[in-house]
Amino acid sequence: MPKENHTIAKSQALLNRYDDVLLRGYIPHKNIFRQADMGYPAFVQRAAGARFWDVDGNVYLDYLMGFGPIVLGYDDPAVCRAVQEQMANGTVYGLAHPRELTVAELLTEVIPGAEVVGFFIGGSAATSSAVRLSRVYTGRDRVIMCGYHGWHDWARPGDVGVPQTVGELTCAVPYGDLDALESRLKKYDNQVACVVMETIQAGGPPDGFLQGCVDLAHAHGAVCVFDETKVGFRVAMGGAGEYYGVIPDIATFGKACCNGYAGSFIAGKREILASKACQSVWMTATAHGDPLSLTAMEVVIGELQRRNGIAYQWKIGNRLIEGINAVCKAGGLSYRLIGVGPMPRPVMEDSDRDRCMEMLRGCLAQGYYLHPSHPMFLSLAHTEVDIEDTIEAVREAIGRIHR
Amino acid sequence: MPKENHTIAKSQALLNRYDDVLLRGYIPHKNIFRQADMGYPAFVQRAAGARFWDVDGNVYLDYLMGFGPIVLGYDDPAVCRAVQEQMANGTVYGLAHPRELTVAELLTEVIPGAEVVGFFIGGSAATSSAVRLSRVYTGRDRVIMCGYHGWHDWARPGDVGVPQTVGELTCAVPYGDLDALESRLKKYDNQVACVVMETIQAGGPPDGFLQGCVDLAHAHGAVCVFDETKVGFRVAMGGAGEYYGVIPDIATFGKACCNGYAGSFIAGKREILASKACQSVWMTATAHGDPLSLTAMEVVIGELQRRNGIAYQWKIGNRLIEGINAVCKAGGLSYRLIGVGPMPRPVMEDSDRDRCMEMLRGCLAQGYYLHPSHPMFLSLAHTEVDIEDTIEAVREAIGRIHR
Repeated sequence: MPKENHTIAKSQALLNRYDDVLLRGYIPHKNIFRQADMGYPAFVQRAAGARFWDVDGNVYLDYLMGFGPIVLGYDDPAVCRAVQEQMANGTVYGLAHPRELTVAELLTEVIPGAEVVGFFIGGSAATSSAVRLSRVYTGRDRVIMCGYHGWHDWARPGDVGVPQTVGELTCAVPYGDLDALESRLKKYDNQVACVVMETIQAGGPPDGFLQGCVDLAHAHGAVCVFDETKVGFRVAMGGAGEYYGVIPDIATFGKACCNGYAGSFIAGKREILASKACQSVWMTATAHGDPLSLTAMEVVIGELQRRNGIAYQWKIGNRLIEGINAVCKAGGLSYRLIGVGPMPRPVMEDSDRDRCMEMLRGCLAQGYYLHPSHPMFLSLAHTEVDIEDTIEAVREAIGRIHR
Repeated sequence: MPKENHTIAKSQALLNRYDDVLLRGYIPHKNIFRQADMGYPAFVQRAAGARFWDVDGNVYLDYLMGFGPIVLGYDDPAVCRAVQEQMANGTVYGLAHPRELTVAELLTEVIPGAEVVGFFIGGSAATSSAVRLSRVYTGRDRVIMCGYHGWHDWARPGDVGVPQTVGELTCAVPYGDLDALESRLKKYDNQVACVVMETIQAGGPPDGFLQGCVDLAHAHGAVCVFDETKVGFRVAMGGAGEYYGVIPDIATFGKACCNGYAGSFIAGKREILASKACQSVWMTATAHGDPLSLTAMEVVIGELQRRNGIAYQWKIGNRLIEGINAVCKAGGLSYRLIGVGPMPRPVMEDSDRDRCMEMLRGCLAQGYYLHPSHPMFLSLAHTEVDIEDTIEAVREAIGRIHR
């Protein structure tokens, strides 16, 4: 049942203070101003399990999960316990810590193709490191990218504040189109250091696409980098590479690998990463390899294995996609979830946008936070009952749409 | 008294496994292989207060403190308590959190010149964001840098893996030399977006140098960015800008601001940061503004104020510099600490290197971790007795040098 008094008044009051002291550009992906205009809350107070409470006291079943990192649940007890223990022993050191070795060794066991590992903070840093290393290994400068790879200069050609000469070294190709990729590789023959591919976009890769990327990159002497930031530890521990059985040269991981800590990593071939040239590269930061992220990562891997967490994400995600698409179709609404189970991506027709948004607001009022456009994420804290309740909430919200 | 059996055998055994699975390039600043060659431990097991235990069971009074972030102490109870409480309520969210506002408001109160704030993770990201915003604000591309500003492409001209056309946009000028800065600004007239200055290097800024940087930048239409990553929350809450009474356009902070969490931030003029152009810039990441870092930051500010922590760092740091320099001089050793109290920088003469290293190894054997070259850091967990004991350990180690 929808709450009679669903309000985001306190969110809106906080937004009124935002521009007085805060820069918008450090979290534009949260789109808090536009979301509030659409009736979505902008400020969260706290979160637990698969739910969050906004500053107005509304509680929601969350389908964003921090834009991907929360895979076990917000306050997963195993992660909290292990991280608290590590916290009492230090959060950053001036020396290396043995856990860097043991977690790297663990990653080489659970991720196909992971022979050598490096730890970073944030997905952008991991992916940028893969580009830096590819440039060192090949002695070339150009990058062909496909999808979203973070906010660093090389990944944002054409953005304001990114010099044209920097942007010109990167070109983007459309997803799923091997001909376009090959044509760019030919155009920049002997100049391309790497192809960086966000492995799952839209409805997922066409048959043979990911292997085709690897083969084309290799045929042109380039390194193939899989950006698994969103899908690693979700569609499979090793991301789409593992799920579709394709081994890239380097894969980059972030988000779900630490269940809400900032750690990220790259993993790839010894031939490249342990080469003398690559071992001499300077990509250092105070927090790289930070023990809290590594502690969390160790627990995430163990819990996903123990609780069969990858299969569970697929199961509830597929049911969510199937259930919501069925009730939307039956209700004559164009809102659909596409893509893979652990990461359903919402789409809607422009002509039908107002009614879809009314449905989504109806879900918010019942305590279900479904996103209008961004890929959504499940967690092991979402129960099967939660999923059924969400589908039912969509059905109820459709029934209440003002016709 | 030196331990009879000081050994780093277990550190060395772990180093032997390193290259099998780990990339060297993610923490090269720790220089663990070279440090081990010099007799320093390479792997830490745990840390508490101002001390750490290496994997061989040796305990050391630490003067690196994670390369700067640990300003209150490794397991500061106030930080641990607050962070644990936040951890139970979530570590990253899909929405904004009110603490982003309240901590930003707090920062504008305690840091001179801070009108608008943006939160990042890692000092490299903060400084890169200042460069991006300067480029947007001025519509220019070139950067004049001075000092160390992290590992991102723009900050590493000439490095392997950094394209020449990227590196060519950045030029470096020597510290303390306003003529050199002016000459570069004239050479690239109307092309320089910003001057990025690591505020305290070597023995600190010559009189009028920092203000001169601001004035010269402004005279040439460039933004002046103070990189306070190392010295913020140490020489003053607001870094060298506050200490020397100079307001830059943008200042960047990291390390000590969170006592060992990865958060960093920029703070600066509303005219620039709240301009329409700057508010449209995309510099987003999942963990930007993460609530654990902001929680830690709030506690760090409160504890430094309550415990008079800036003055204390100066007091014990100045005593360490004075005491060690006196016993080294008396013992005929060239090892000296230069620079500012909260961040003593070791120097030694090449001709005297072997004897200095023997002295430093003698200190290690007594449980005092003094660095041969990197700026060192104090904390509020270092007692005045710790400092006197360290000076005494240096005296004893000099007495044992094999002549």
